[in-house]
Amino acid sequence: MVVFSGTMDRLMPVGILASGAVAMGMDVDIFLTFWGLQAFSKRAQGAPPKFSGDYADMAPMFAEVMRKKNVPSPIETLRTAKKLGNVRIHACTMTMDMLGQTKSDFIDLVDRTTGVGEFMDLAKDAKITLFI
Amino acid sequence: MVVFSGTMDRLMPVGILASGAVAMGMDVDIFLTFWGLQAFSKRAQGAPPKFSGDYADMAPMFAEVMRKKNVPSPIETLRTAKKLGNVRIHACTMTMDMLGQTKSDFIDLVDRTTGVGEFMDLAKDAKITLFI
Amino acid sequence: MVVFSGTMDRLMPVGILASGAVAMGMDVDIFLTFWGLQAFSKRAQGAPPKFSGDYADMAPMFAEVMRKKNVPSPIETLRTAKKLGNVRIHACTMTMDMLGQTKSDFIDLVDRTTGVGEFMDLAKDAKITLFI
Repeated sequence: MVVFSGTMDRLMPVGILASGAVAMGMDVDIFLTFWGLQAFSKRAQGAPPKFSGDYADMAPMFAEVMRKKNVPSPIETLRTAKKLGNVRIHACTMTMDMLGQTKSDFIDLVDRTTGVGEFMDLAKDAKITLFI
Repeated sequence: MVVFSGTMDRLMPVGILASGAVAMGMDVDIFLTFWGLQAFSKRAQGAPPKFSGDYADMAPMFAEVMRKKNVPSPIETLRTAKKLGNVRIHACTMTMDMLGQTKSDFIDLVDRTTGVGEFMDLAKDAKITLFI
Repeated sequence: MVVFSGTMDRLMPVGILASGAVAMGMDVDIFLTFWGLQAFSKRAQGAPPKFSGDYADMAPMFAEVMRKKNVPSPIETLRTAKKLGNVRIHACTMTMDMLGQTKSDFIDLVDRTTGVGEFMDLAKDAKITLFI
């Protein structure tokens, strides 16, 4: 999975698809880049969840349901998926270089920093490839 | 195909890619989730088509062309693709559970309800996997 | 890669993933459709880069960094990738037909016009398939 997006609604399926894959015994590699990587920065933690503007009409209802049903956040879901199976989370070195970030700017869920070419090489052996 | 998005412009390629795949003799499995699933609810039918806000400058021109040329809606395109080949449309059980929805809340184009793990298991044998 | 999106931030990974793939010795086929195709029209060249509205809070910072560090545009990155390896860029015939466009409406980076079915047939033999 290449995770480019950083809104709450687009990060939800990242956690959920990773959990589903792990439940079926698959390994998961997640490549965080651009806005997706920024959502895993230490600075972004605790910020109010932001939904895609295109669904502003339905977003408050979703947010309300998630609160009421205690739906775990994407980061909590990924943390659980990592405990249950092989989930490796990669930070895109190019995005980090561009913004002058280092691995310590991100939460501990991020396992390693990886170049795009290196990730493409990993991805070519994957059964499922998604850009989110 | 995992269909997460619910705007008209992002649903168009869902129908078109499914038609193209069917024309080449491929089977298609479409997993509707989040906003994508809501676009197939009975309640959403007849609502005015909404385009992604990011292309607001070009959207009216697209909408006008689609009207003038009688371009079929994504749902009509999918209906035709189903007649011509194997297209199975799955509703994400997790989204339905979260929002308290049942299969009868959706149009008859939706064939069945499927869990994320189950769909991942299907997807791992697919030749093409896309997240839209 | 199916490239549906036309904002600067979503086109960046198109160029970067293509470069990464070429660096690993892979061939790349890019299918431009909808807003993605419009970004390669001659008319769109020189227009100020537009970022996804969802990241309006971070976009000015990104734009500033890109300017300061002379980060090449997606089109420049693709041009370089084409020099280094096999990158074929396809324009979606259906989008062109709908909008009454011809191949001469697009910059020379676009190699050929291709139908959706034809591209699906190509994509089914690819190791990595992404919808951006």
